[in-house]
Amino acid sequence: MKLVELAQRTDSTIEIGSPDLDIISTAGLDIADTGDISFLANPKYTPQIAETKATAIFLNEGVAIDRNDIAVLRAKDAYVAYTLAMRFFFPDPEIKPFIHPTAVIDPTATVASDVEIHANAVIGAKCSIAGGVRIMPNVTIYDGVSVGEKTTIHSGASVRENCEIGARCIIHNNSTIGSDGFGYAKTEEKHWLKIPQTGRVVLEDDVEIGANTAIDRASVGETRIKRGAKIDNLVQIGHSCTIDEDALICSQTGLAGSSVIGKRVILTGQVGIAGHLKVGDDAVLTAKSATSHDVEPGKIMSGIPAFENRDWLRSTAAFRKLGEMAQRLRKLEKRVFGDES
Amino acid sequence: MKLVELAQRTDSTIEIGSPDLDIISTAGLDIADTGDISFLANPKYTPQIAETKATAIFLNEGVAIDRNDIAVLRAKDAYVAYTLAMRFFFPDPEIKPFIHPTAVIDPTATVASDVEIHANAVIGAKCSIAGGVRIMPNVTIYDGVSVGEKTTIHSGASVRENCEIGARCIIHNNSTIGSDGFGYAKTEEKHWLKIPQTGRVVLEDDVEIGANTAIDRASVGETRIKRGAKIDNLVQIGHSCTIDEDALICSQTGLAGSSVIGKRVILTGQVGIAGHLKVGDDAVLTAKSATSHDVEPGKIMSGIPAFENRDWLRSTAAFRKLGEMAQRLRKLEKRVFGDES
Amino acid sequence: MKLVELAQRTDSTIEIGSPDLDIISTAGLDIADTGDISFLANPKYTPQIAETKATAIFLNEGVAIDRNDIAVLRAKDAYVAYTLAMRFFFPDPEIKPFIHPTAVIDPTATVASDVEIHANAVIGAKCSIAGGVRIMPNVTIYDGVSVGEKTTIHSGASVRENCEIGARCIIHNNSTIGSDGFGYAKTEEKHWLKIPQTGRVVLEDDVEIGANTAIDRASVGETRIKRGAKIDNLVQIGHSCTIDEDALICSQTGLAGSSVIGKRVILTGQVGIAGHLKVGDDAVLTAKSATSHDVEPGKIMSGIPAFENRDWLRSTAAFRKLGEMAQRLRKLEKRVFGDES
Repeated sequence: MKLVELAQRTDSTIEIGSPDLDIISTAGLDIADTGDISFLANPKYTPQIAETKATAIFLNEGVAIDRNDIAVLRAKDAYVAYTLAMRFFFPDPEIKPFIHPTAVIDPTATVASDVEIHANAVIGAKCSIAGGVRIMPNVTIYDGVSVGEKTTIHSGASVRENCEIGARCIIHNNSTIGSDGFGYAKTEEKHWLKIPQTGRVVLEDDVEIGANTAIDRASVGETRIKRGAKIDNLVQIGHSCTIDEDALICSQTGLAGSSVIGKRVILTGQVGIAGHLKVGDDAVLTAKSATSHDVEPGKIMSGIPAFENRDWLRSTAAFRKLGEMAQRLRKLEKRVFGDES
Repeated sequence: MKLVELAQRTDSTIEIGSPDLDIISTAGLDIADTGDISFLANPKYTPQIAETKATAIFLNEGVAIDRNDIAVLRAKDAYVAYTLAMRFFFPDPEIKPFIHPTAVIDPTATVASDVEIHANAVIGAKCSIAGGVRIMPNVTIYDGVSVGEKTTIHSGASVRENCEIGARCIIHNNSTIGSDGFGYAKTEEKHWLKIPQTGRVVLEDDVEIGANTAIDRASVGETRIKRGAKIDNLVQIGHSCTIDEDALICSQTGLAGSSVIGKRVILTGQVGIAGHLKVGDDAVLTAKSATSHDVEPGKIMSGIPAFENRDWLRSTAAFRKLGEMAQRLRKLEKRVFGDES
Repeated sequence: MKLVELAQRTDSTIEIGSPDLDIISTAGLDIADTGDISFLANPKYTPQIAETKATAIFLNEGVAIDRNDIAVLRAKDAYVAYTLAMRFFFPDPEIKPFIHPTAVIDPTATVASDVEIHANAVIGAKCSIAGGVRIMPNVTIYDGVSVGEKTTIHSGASVRENCEIGARCIIHNNSTIGSDGFGYAKTEEKHWLKIPQTGRVVLEDDVEIGANTAIDRASVGETRIKRGAKIDNLVQIGHSCTIDEDALICSQTGLAGSSVIGKRVILTGQVGIAGHLKVGDDAVLTAKSATSHDVEPGKIMSGIPAFENRDWLRSTAAFRKLGEMAQRLRKLEKRVFGDES
């Protein structure tokens, strides 16, 4: 690909270099070779620029470099531009429409013609599978599910009855969409009486679900993952939660039931969110924290239970010396109170 | 269904309303419509009673309401009565006996006639599948497994060799029952030598296992989940554990090997239980706590490591100001000791 | 098996007992019966020796017993010797080569003759399956995967495109090897733009992966699990991590991307490791701890964030009384400062 075409595709402008330069792939500064385009987003990697063999580089506005033997594409956001280049050089494989003879598709299901349905996939009654969908081997789609166009469902995943999957979603391997919520009433004999889980799960468009993640159906109504939200591996989403647009939920985080996660919220790894609460837009919970209260928009929260990250940093610093603090307190008491107590 | 029949089925009594009133479904107070029966269990929802369009309502004994245009069913426990009503209006689907032609059943397996074996399920040698069982697509049952009557195993689940599943169990999607315990001996060369895991897992009757949960077989003997215990999604049960009757284990909780969880114990979300310990009957561990010691019956424990919840609440409140406490301590020391130190 | 042969196989020597004694199985001291060999490794079980019905026992050097009616095999490490005996009496089942007619194997795959390929397994294009491999039902192997000799892949597991699995590995049920790393660039509109994950996962020889574990492929290059590392159930390994030889990673632990875990490191249950850091050889993180910094070789670390275990034990002991400490501090301030503040 010519440099000029790459600039157009990545919304960047050529600052140094011939428009006709051939770019053949992408690579990080340290491993790039002739023909590669690279990028600098984090200033800590600036020293690698002196050594890189890359033919071209994306740079943020205002960032200067010392070399003039590398083509420079100037971008508003070098990392986004580089990602767009990667997506060009490493595109998703094209759909090669086929339905494997071992796939089991209920005759009442509606399946578009340009889909891949791989070996031993099972699709239930009254399902609707849109164009460009790829269903990998050993996937199970229960009755009444709809899958939007260009969605990929990886092997071993299960989508339970009546769930709705949007367009351009990716569901990774062995994930479960629509398992029963964990709801019981306690009887007089102290047994657990299962509450029917009659709802469903809706994934809107452009949602990605990692591997081995479980998203429970609502007891009544919907568990809803909104447009553009991204969920990592081994995440638990309890019944009746709502995950708003562009939220990012990292691995092994868990949400109890009926919580609402705002737009662009970031829940980092191994976070816990109790039931029936609201995390405001753009809030962040740092790794391993947990909240049983609402979180205001934009806050960065840490700890178990979580409070403001700034305060938590001070508290955890002091905690390392808490044993010593306890000793110092006893010493003070002895001096001040003597034998009084 | 007539109100009088519903009262009988839910062990409640008609206080207001005609026995002939038709009830057609269940719904929460806020979304109920004509024909629905609703309930009030938590006093905080009392204001919704003024607005609800429900035709009937379950009320606990002693709870009064201001309206006389709603039928009232009086119950010992309104939530249990409502759950019974939900179970009536939203019953599990009836078994429609069939064995899908793509299911692979070893000829030495014993399979009752009134079962559903769905597409691409695989059942090993010498298995025993009782009446009313439903095995969904892409389930794998290894050799020597028995499955009790009316149990449902959802798609993608695996039950390993020689495990025993009781009656009326539900195993959700992609869960693993009977994987090897994590046991190794360290050799002189500091390699890990795998210890054979020769035991099995037993689920007694009325056990429910969530999605993507892993229950390891015992190294010797049994890992046993007793009658009525309920286990959520993404839970880890290590080898040789015993989970006693009616215990409730919430999502992403993990148990190392050989621990014993008492009757009606509640382990909430993301709890950790070390190996070889005992959690007494009716104890509760709050979310994200962990214990490496035995827990006495009935205790509520929190923290890492866990101690009594009442004390933990005080400690965590103080922890938020620990940075400030450290400063105040230094100020006191300066005043009291001056330049001594 | 004669005692003399067992001694040879377990690198131990007969101290008491006839070389011709028949040993028929292994069992713990408390449940052993005539014909069993048992072991004593942990001194706390010494009292069981008086009661055991075992015919023979492995003892560490220097450990004496009071009975002379039990055969004694003296070993450098009684637990390793006992494990070797267990492995002899409970061997892995022999391979009985077959390819089930419902398995779907791409014609371009290379499959050795002495393999077990069970029902409904799916093997993609250009895969290479070595001798002695066992692929259980409903496994999915994507295109371009190689599986080394004598490896077992359990039902429901998925191995994604181009991954490489070494010899004598065990992958337990429903695990995912090679799902996409969790990587996005944030666009100007604050949407998440997926970064192509072009790398792969390599499991070297003798690696064991638990059930329902997810190991992400590298964005570029490799996620690599080195020779002899053992990974438990429900573990998350992020993209581009390296797990060095003989590391042990317990259940529900999670690693963000690009971290390097040293040789023989032990990450116990529910540990969290942030991205781009290094845990030195032989370090240990105790249960539920988390680090966002490098860990020096050999250290034992605890807490969130983790610091040295010895200090953490003192801090957590003081933490139990932190509410009381806060009160005592106020009392001191009142006495020392009076009404000043």
